[in-house]
Amino acid sequence: MPLQPRAVVLLSGGLDSATTLAIARSRGLECHALSFRYGQRHAVEVEAAARVARSLGVAQHLVLDIDLRRFGGSALTGGLEVPKGRSVEEMQQSIPVTYVPARNTIMLAYALAWAEVLEAQSIYIGVNALDYSGYPDCRPEYIAAFERLANLATKAGVEGRSLRIEAPLITCSKAQIIRQGLELGVDYSLTTSCYDPAPDGAACGGCDACLLRLRGFAECGVADPIRYQRLATGLNKEN
Amino acid sequence: MPLQPRAVVLLSGGLDSATTLAIARSRGLECHALSFRYGQRHAVEVEAAARVARSLGVAQHLVLDIDLRRFGGSALTGGLEVPKGRSVEEMQQSIPVTYVPARNTIMLAYALAWAEVLEAQSIYIGVNALDYSGYPDCRPEYIAAFERLANLATKAGVEGRSLRIEAPLITCSKAQIIRQGLELGVDYSLTTSCYDPAPDGAACGGCDACLLRLRGFAECGVADPIRYQRLATGLNKEN
Repeated sequence: MPLQPRAVVLLSGGLDSATTLAIARSRGLECHALSFRYGQRHAVEVEAAARVARSLGVAQHLVLDIDLRRFGGSALTGGLEVPKGRSVEEMQQSIPVTYVPARNTIMLAYALAWAEVLEAQSIYIGVNALDYSGYPDCRPEYIAAFERLANLATKAGVEGRSLRIEAPLITCSKAQIIRQGLELGVDYSLTTSCYDPAPDGAACGGCDACLLRLRGFAECGVADPIRYQRLATGLNKEN
Repeated sequence: MPLQPRAVVLLSGGLDSATTLAIARSRGLECHALSFRYGQRHAVEVEAAARVARSLGVAQHLVLDIDLRRFGGSALTGGLEVPKGRSVEEMQQSIPVTYVPARNTIMLAYALAWAEVLEAQSIYIGVNALDYSGYPDCRPEYIAAFERLANLATKAGVEGRSLRIEAPLITCSKAQIIRQGLELGVDYSLTTSCYDPAPDGAACGGCDACLLRLRGFAECGVADPIRYQRLATGLNKEN
């Protein structure tokens, strides 16, 4: 067994996963960050993940290629249009076209493989059920089912060492997440949330992810430190 | 919904997955076969999978690259020695070094993504609990836990269409699997099971997979149609 308890932390480069990593670090865990290039339309996420990993002091940061474009089926990996300017009610009504089939299951499965090799005691994932925009694999019952699976799937489980799937933000609002992160010293200028950023990395300000993020910062009374292409439009839609 | 019910079938090119595909076809399903290059030491498996897919008439065969070598931890993906000439009792005593961490979980997660895009109603996997050589992710309780997860993870589950994880061989002996496959017209000369084949594709005859396969054919009173490097040694160990 490793001397310091270890965690595998799924790190997308977004606000939620950066905060999740900071929480895992604050609990004294040696963190091994795992990111994916999953055929998304932009490499901005992976660069943000690397910046966040460095700034929060991980033991290791691994980036894996998983080509989900081979299956099709999502605006984040295929050719569909990312919706803009939707209200929170619209976001919550149905599963959006930006949903990537089984993405969290695939990412957790890889994290499980690494956790087993590292003898890690936990996997941290920044999913969120409140702002989850209708993604089925962000619900608490999904996380519980994966934890159960993980302990049946692995040597660790068979040998009686149990693995925890930790989703510390699952019931937090975006504002609560940001407040927690700021207390733990997360530098949100390093993160990115936009589904459809400009070539220079500026956030669009109108997609679901931008609107939820902007609303969260507004509720905290803190300025979002990242750059937006058309912040005014994004905020207008919210007000 | 597709006109003919669809299944995603995990196809390794081995005896069990070939039989599983034949069973899915015999149930009238349109089969979409999924194979992986997972950093295994040989490409023989993927070639066998392609031959089996062609001979059994799949709608589509997709081969994905998943580089499990990045994590280390197994004789099938790293530099450890594959054990040879073990008795079935030795195989069942512990999880062998050929165990690949979380491999079935990763493969099922990809199958789940594809099943969701295809609107497939089932995923077929050729795992086997009797001859399972101590792999934790080949047990019936593992398959049941994945099915539960799959129905929480996906749009299909949320919308009330349920997805089945079918493991039709899970309680069969190797001999029962072979008898079933022969009845369904599986050409086992197209398959490969060996963990450590020669460069020309001949099976080693001594690894756990070869020994279990040879014993299965012997119990059926049928000759195994594939080529072995040192069949005599393999059989001697069994007698």
